[in-house]
Amino acid sequence: MFDTVGLMRGFPPPAGSQVTIANMQDGPWNRWAFRNMRRLLPTANVWRGDGECAELPVASVHLDDVEFESATGGTRTVREMLDEGFTDGFVVLHEGAIASERYAAGVEAHEPHLLMSVTKSFAGSLAGIVAGRGLLSPEDLVTDIVPEVTGSAYDGARVRHVLDMSVSMDYDEDYENPQSDVALLDVAAGWRPAREGAPDNLRDYIPSMRKAGGEHGVAFHYVSTNTDLLGWILERVSGTDFATLLSREIWQSMGAEFDAYVTVDRLGAPQTDGGLCVATRDLARFGLLHLQHGVMQGRRIVPEEWIRDFRENGDAEAWDRGSFAEFLPGFHYRSKWYTDRRDPHRPCLGLGIHGQFLFVDPVAGVVIAKHSSHPRPADEAYFDDTVRAFEAIAHALAG
Amino acid sequence: MFDTVGLMRGFPPPAGSQVTIANMQDGPWNRWAFRNMRRLLPTANVWRGDGECAELPVASVHLDDVEFESATGGTRTVREMLDEGFTDGFVVLHEGAIASERYAAGVEAHEPHLLMSVTKSFAGSLAGIVAGRGLLSPEDLVTDIVPEVTGSAYDGARVRHVLDMSVSMDYDEDYENPQSDVALLDVAAGWRPAREGAPDNLRDYIPSMRKAGGEHGVAFHYVSTNTDLLGWILERVSGTDFATLLSREIWQSMGAEFDAYVTVDRLGAPQTDGGLCVATRDLARFGLLHLQHGVMQGRRIVPEEWIRDFRENGDAEAWDRGSFAEFLPGFHYRSKWYTDRRDPHRPCLGLGIHGQFLFVDPVAGVVIAKHSSHPRPADEAYFDDTVRAFEAIAHALAG
Repeated sequence: MFDTVGLMRGFPPPAGSQVTIANMQDGPWNRWAFRNMRRLLPTANVWRGDGECAELPVASVHLDDVEFESATGGTRTVREMLDEGFTDGFVVLHEGAIASERYAAGVEAHEPHLLMSVTKSFAGSLAGIVAGRGLLSPEDLVTDIVPEVTGSAYDGARVRHVLDMSVSMDYDEDYENPQSDVALLDVAAGWRPAREGAPDNLRDYIPSMRKAGGEHGVAFHYVSTNTDLLGWILERVSGTDFATLLSREIWQSMGAEFDAYVTVDRLGAPQTDGGLCVATRDLARFGLLHLQHGVMQGRRIVPEEWIRDFRENGDAEAWDRGSFAEFLPGFHYRSKWYTDRRDPHRPCLGLGIHGQFLFVDPVAGVVIAKHSSHPRPADEAYFDDTVRAFEAIAHALAG
Repeated sequence: MFDTVGLMRGFPPPAGSQVTIANMQDGPWNRWAFRNMRRLLPTANVWRGDGECAELPVASVHLDDVEFESATGGTRTVREMLDEGFTDGFVVLHEGAIASERYAAGVEAHEPHLLMSVTKSFAGSLAGIVAGRGLLSPEDLVTDIVPEVTGSAYDGARVRHVLDMSVSMDYDEDYENPQSDVALLDVAAGWRPAREGAPDNLRDYIPSMRKAGGEHGVAFHYVSTNTDLLGWILERVSGTDFATLLSREIWQSMGAEFDAYVTVDRLGAPQTDGGLCVATRDLARFGLLHLQHGVMQGRRIVPEEWIRDFRENGDAEAWDRGSFAEFLPGFHYRSKWYTDRRDPHRPCLGLGIHGQFLFVDPVAGVVIAKHSSHPRPADEAYFDDTVRAFEAIAHALAG
């Protein structure tokens, strides 16, 4: 826990406990960094507006002893999953009420916490809203909206391929290799120290994506840069910066309780593949919005058809041919949301490295939000077990 | 106005309209920068808490035609001062009600705006609160609290000298010379691009202040670094980072309406000489707190004696011997607040370059907050005329 780690204590903090952009993604430093991203990087605020927040009544349910079958064999409990899962914030909603809510020592409910790639699901739903206004179609050619990427891997790609991570390109998303493409993306976003010869902003970096031999749309290939391109597309077609768009289209209208924020690069471009930071309770509200088919407080926010589509129309074959098939078997990915086809409830999820989760089970009426600072980016057993725990909670609550 | 300048428009903005740390303090780029500091720099949030804000009733008064004698000769009106003064936000309170409130086109009331050196007055009043708790005395030797500055100009200096800008040192606060000491302070704070051989954080920079021949306490000498040292002192004696301290001790208890924030350096040290950003209405509330002798919403926040002391006990002779005597004749400076002794009401003020003002006239019951993005840092006629306009408003409202 943060308090035992003692990071960033003292004025100035002793060298060994300093968190900087050079170590912020690594454990244990990420325990401080993920809830203090704005102390490390420039950010754009996502204003909640001046209206009332969507109240969440409390109807506590004891969930600690709910059991699930671990991916690594044996039976585990929800409590073990939470205790061992570097949990910073955890909120379970059932039928719109808070069934469970807890935070790590020192974490306050109002603090925005990094979402990593759950950010992508926000970008995906914003794309649905913008498409619903007629400003964007999944069939649009990417190069028609962002001509800067002409000549790159995005030649011939449609917005649909960007939404579904099925752009064919030569790209290495290895979080633990500082020379990988995704590490270079971090440098461009300001998430790692500047490097000689490397791009110093996102929009110089995105057009450098390399072509691969294949066709677009055939296989799932997880490339974070695709979602930074989606953020760029959203800003171009709406004429509005991402943080303001998110504030206007979702944060204000869904009744968020706290402001959120997104990290931005040296020139103000938002890190829309992973840079959004929100309070755990507001993450749960965003899940509730999708549980309720796009309606919150009586307001239509996300088109119903967009949500139905990403839950039902994912390309299972593309998933099975793709890079996550072994990691999360039986899933699909569409419009920046995952769906677990193994579970008869077909819950949909947002997932982010180091343990960020949003889980929405419309059959059980359950939303689960979990913020974490797991020391490893993509511990497979941890990810699969957490999803299994969520599904066990949902089935227990569905009774 | 922002809208006509067209800064940071487009995704990405064209090169000529990009605002970065390299140009953010210069006009016209500062028009965008001063209300978007967190898009340029790391920041620490000053949480407003979850209580009700201190409501400000509206009782509008037409003030545009109030006249004052310009420092450069002739009669001018408040409206001319506002129109020509690159005003971003302007709030006048009389007897606790909003007499006037206006914003530049495109500026929203909820947006925090840079305070520049009005930040210092916040640090000064926090020092009063911390002193009231017995954690600090103005008589303390600085080197007893921050031994890191031993051997620097701060040898022998007391907290009182830091509070009153009467530390004797060799320092050049020339905002328009990129080689000055204050420019190097900017580099350390992350406010200007890194330089080879220059300190890359505030707490490596502060101990480098050079001794001058004189005694401490004799002459007013405006040195921004003193207030970064005060921020360091406040963090050391309270064991709490500046943003959290400000949130707990003032922002939550006075009923601020919006979160504020302060820029921080690479290692999280706050820029307490000028990096605080607050909404104009909350700046007015902070003024009201002082108008009410340290009480807001029935709560004692700043010790009454501390406020009385800085208004009454300033060293007029030190001022007259000091660096601002020609710029603002007849003032004094104590505990990071100015007092205008020319005016029989003896209003107290916070002042910041490029047109940041907080004016508190306890006799007239008037508070005036003004955020601006004047192209020049310290245009003398503009500063003096703005204070004259405020005094004319206060006298008009006092009837």
